Amino acid sequence: MEKVDIIIKTKHMYTLEGEGVGYLSDYGVAIDRGKIKAVLPVSELKKNYEAEKFIDASDKVLLPGFIDGHMHTGHGVLRGVAQDISNWMMEGMAPFEAQRSIEAKDSGSRLAIAEAVLNGTTTIGDDGSDIAGSCDFIQKIGVRGNVSVRIRDALMKTYKAGELYIFDDNYGEKTLNECLDIFSKYHDIDSGRIKIRFGPQGPDFVSLKMLKKVKKLSKERNTKIHMHLQQGSRETKQMTGRYGVRSIPWLDEIGYFDEDFIGIHLTDALEEEVKIVAGRKASMILCSSSIGIIDGIVPPAKIFQDAGGIVGLGSDQALGNNCHNIINEMKLTAILNKVKYEDPEVMPAWKVLRMATIENAKALGIDKITGSIKEGKYADLILVDLNQASLAPLYTKPMRNFIPNLVYSARGNEVDTVIVAGKIIVENKAPKTFDMNEILQEVQGHADVIGERATAQFNEINGKNAVYMRENKL
Amino acid sequence: MEKVDIIIKTKHMYTLEGEGVGYLSDYGVAIDRGKIKAVLPVSELKKNYEAEKFIDASDKVLLPGFIDGHMHTGHGVLRGVAQDISNWMMEGMAPFEAQRSIEAKDSGSRLAIAEAVLNGTTTIGDDGSDIAGSCDFIQKIGVRGNVSVRIRDALMKTYKAGELYIFDDNYGEKTLNECLDIFSKYHDIDSGRIKIRFGPQGPDFVSLKMLKKVKKLSKERNTKIHMHLQQGSRETKQMTGRYGVRSIPWLDEIGYFDEDFIGIHLTDALEEEVKIVAGRKASMILCSSSIGIIDGIVPPAKIFQDAGGIVGLGSDQALGNNCHNIINEMKLTAILNKVKYEDPEVMPAWKVLRMATIENAKALGIDKITGSIKEGKYADLILVDLNQASLAPLYTKPMRNFIPNLVYSARGNEVDTVIVAGKIIVENKAPKTFDMNEILQEVQGHADVIGERATAQFNEINGKNAVYMRENKL
Repeated sequence: MEKVDIIIKTKHMYTLEGEGVGYLSDYGVAIDRGKIKAVLPVSELKKNYEAEKFIDASDKVLLPGFIDGHMHTGHGVLRGVAQDISNWMMEGMAPFEAQRSIEAKDSGSRLAIAEAVLNGTTTIGDDGSDIAGSCDFIQKIGVRGNVSVRIRDALMKTYKAGELYIFDDNYGEKTLNECLDIFSKYHDIDSGRIKIRFGPQGPDFVSLKMLKKVKKLSKERNTKIHMHLQQGSRETKQMTGRYGVRSIPWLDEIGYFDEDFIGIHLTDALEEEVKIVAGRKASMILCSSSIGIIDGIVPPAKIFQDAGGIVGLGSDQALGNNCHNIINEMKLTAILNKVKYEDPEVMPAWKVLRMATIENAKALGIDKITGSIKEGKYADLILVDLNQASLAPLYTKPMRNFIPNLVYSARGNEVDTVIVAGKIIVENKAPKTFDMNEILQEVQGHADVIGERATAQFNEINGKNAVYMRENKL
Repeated sequence: MEKVDIIIKTKHMYTLEGEGVGYLSDYGVAIDRGKIKAVLPVSELKKNYEAEKFIDASDKVLLPGFIDGHMHTGHGVLRGVAQDISNWMMEGMAPFEAQRSIEAKDSGSRLAIAEAVLNGTTTIGDDGSDIAGSCDFIQKIGVRGNVSVRIRDALMKTYKAGELYIFDDNYGEKTLNECLDIFSKYHDIDSGRIKIRFGPQGPDFVSLKMLKKVKKLSKERNTKIHMHLQQGSRETKQMTGRYGVRSIPWLDEIGYFDEDFIGIHLTDALEEEVKIVAGRKASMILCSSSIGIIDGIVPPAKIFQDAGGIVGLGSDQALGNNCHNIINEMKLTAILNKVKYEDPEVMPAWKVLRMATIENAKALGIDKITGSIKEGKYADLILVDLNQASLAPLYTKPMRNFIPNLVYSARGNEVDTVIVAGKIIVENKAPKTFDMNEILQEVQGHADVIGERATAQFNEINGKNAVYMRENKL
C-alpha cells in the first residue's frame, strides 16, 4: 500500500484525454504532492493506495478544472456599468475606469478570481497592467495563473476620431519593464503554478520596434505572447492609417505568428486572415459572451478550428460580459455559433467542453501540466454535484446526457469542489483559502467611491446608460 | 395600525410599473390575503401596518416574480437527450419520448416546475397533452399556472417525408374533450391562480373545422388560444401541401389572430407575416435558448415589437434548451438579438426584464393580476440576494447596475425568496412547499427505465448522439 495525499472515488469521470471527452466509469484518482499519481478503476485504487484524505464522489462528476484563457480581472470592481451601448469604451467604461485606483482594481481582481474559482475555473488567465495584486492573490489562494502583462507605447489620453495614437518610447519602456519585473517575480513560482506572458496590448497600441523587442525577449525567456488581435474597426483604422495595411497581414509580414503567439478575439478578422494565423500554429482565445454583448459579433472560432488552429475560451471582463463563469462561455459559444451558421450541429457540447479544458491548455501552452486528468499532470480538478435540478435526471444509457446538461443547463453553482495542484480550494461549495464576505465588502467600498467620483463625467458623456437612468429603465 | 399577513422592507425595489422598470428606493410592500395591499416608503409602511411576518430584505432586491410563457414541463424527465442535432424531433427526442409513461411525464413536470420556481419563476406556462399531473402539482405547491391543453387532429404516427398528416375527427374530439375537462377542473381555481388555455398544437396539426370550433369555444369561455406558429419548414410544407398557402396568411384569412391569440416561436415567419400577427394585437412568446439550440435561429421578436406587438419569454423544454431558468432566457434574448442585428444596443437588459415580467403577463392576458408590483395585484414576488459574487458590487450612482447584472451575470441561484399570491414558496433558497430530493429521486427512477427501453430505437436511428457515444464524445 502506497501512501498518497488524496484519493477521489467516482462513478463518472471525464478525463478529457484523447479526441473526445475520455469518459471513465467507476474510476478514481490518487493525488500526491500536487500531481495525479494514478487514474485507476476504484477496485485497483483501493488495493494499491491509502490516503490522508478520501473523497467519495459517487454522486458527483470528476472533471479537469476549467481554464479561463483571457480575463481582465481588475474590471471586477466595475461589473455591470457598461453594456447595451454602442461605444462601450468611451461611453460605457471611460468615466468609471478613470476613477479606479490600483487598490480598487486589486479588489476587483479578487472578486473576479473568487467568482471564477467558485464556478470551477482552476487556471486564471489574467491580462492587463498593474497586475501584481492579481498575481499575489492567485499565489495566495493557490489557483493556477497564466498572466500576461500589458505592454504599450500609445500614450493614455483621449484621442480625436481618426487621430493616430501617439507612441512614446519612454512610456513603452516603462510598461515593458513592468512586464519584466512581474516576470522575474512570479514566473514559474510554486513549481510553475504561475506563468507570466508578454502582453503587447494590440498591434495598434505598440510600435514595430517594441513588438520586435517583445518577440525577442519572450523567446529568450521561453514564454508566450498574449495579444488582442483584429478587435474591430478602431484597430483597423489605426493600422491602415499608420501602415496602410490591416493588422494580420502586417504582423504576418514581420513574422509575428508562431506557436508561441496567442491571439485574442479576432472579432472582425477576415476569413483569409484567420487562416493565416491558424496556419502559423498560433492559437486563439474566444470570448463569446463579451464580444456578443459589446460588439454584437460572433468571432471566427469555427474558421480558426477548421483551419487546424487551437481555440480556447475566455470570459474577458465584468463590464460587458458581465461574469466570470466558463460554463456560461461554453453555452454562449455553442449557441452563438449554431445561430451564426444556422446549424444546430455546429459547436456541440463536447467540443466547447474541450475548449474550456484541454484545448485551452494547449492554446495557452500549459497542456503538459494541466487541462486533462492524466498521470503526471497536476491535480487541477473539479467535482460537479449531480443532486441539482439543472443536471437531473442523469442518463448513462443509451447516451450520457451529463455534458450537454453541464453546457446548456448548469449555472455554475453545481461546482462542489475545486482542487488545484492537489490543494483543495473549494469544498462543499465553500471557499477554503479565501473569505468571500471580506471580498464582497471590500469591493463594495471601492465601488461606492468610484460611483461618486464618476458621476460628473458620466453625465457629461451622456451615453445610453445615462439616458436609461433618466427614463427609469435601470 | 392595520394588520396584514406580510411586510417586506427593501432598499431596492423594481416594480416594473410604467414604461421602464419602476425603481423605488427604501420602499416596502404590505401583503394581505394574497394581494399587495400597499407599496409605500418604509417609514409610512411602519406607521400604518403591522404584520404576522416581517421580512427585512435590505440586502436583497424585490422584483415581481418571473413569468415563463411557454414550457413543456413533462419533458423534464428527458433533459439533455436531444441537442447538437439537426433533426431534433426524429433523431433526438423520438426514441426517448416513445418510452415516456404518463407517470414519467408527471415526474418530469415536477422537476421542471421545481427548477423554474427555484430560479424565480412564479407563473408556470405549461403546454401539452396529459397535463393533469402538472396542474395538480402547480395547485399543490402554490405557484401560478397558465396552462394550455393540446388539441390536435393529426394522428400520432411516423410520417414519411412529404406525407400530409392524417386528420382524424375522433382523435381531434378526444383531445378537445381533454382540454374541456381540464378547463372545467382547473380554470380559475384558487381565486384564479390557474388559467387554462386552449392549445391547438399548430395550424398544420389541426383541421380547419377544429380550429374554428376552438376559436368559438375559447371565446365563450373567455380564455385564450396558445398555439405554435410558423415553427419551421416542416410546418410550411404541410400548410402549402394541404392549402397552398403558408400558415400566417391562411390563419389571418380565417380571422384567427386577435388579442386572445398567443403565437409561440414564429421561428421562420417572414417579416410581413410577423407584422400581420402583431397588427392584429395577438401576442408572441419567444423561446430564445431552445430555438437557438434546436434550430440555430433567432426568432423575429424585434420585428414583432417594432410593429407594436407584445412579446414574452419562455423556456420551452429540457431536451433542447436544456433548462427552465428565465434569467437564462433574458440573457440569451439580449445577446442573440444583438448578434442578429450586429448592434449592442438592441434588446437592452431592462427590456428583456420587462419581457420576463410585465410584458409576459400582458402576452398571456394575466397583467391585471400579476407581472408587476402594484396595489391590488397578487403578491407574486421574488427577493434576489445581493451577497453574491455575480451581483457585486452594487452601483446606485451614477447608474444602477443591478438589472444588467441580473440579466447578464446572475445564474438563478441568487433568487432567495419566492412568493406567490402571498404564500412563501421558497425561503432562504430552500423550497417550503415541495421536497426537492424526493423529486430528484423519483425522476431518476423514471429516467433509468426510459433509457433502458429507448436503447434499441436509439441505436437503430443512429443519430448524431449515437455517433458521439461511439466516439467517446459524451
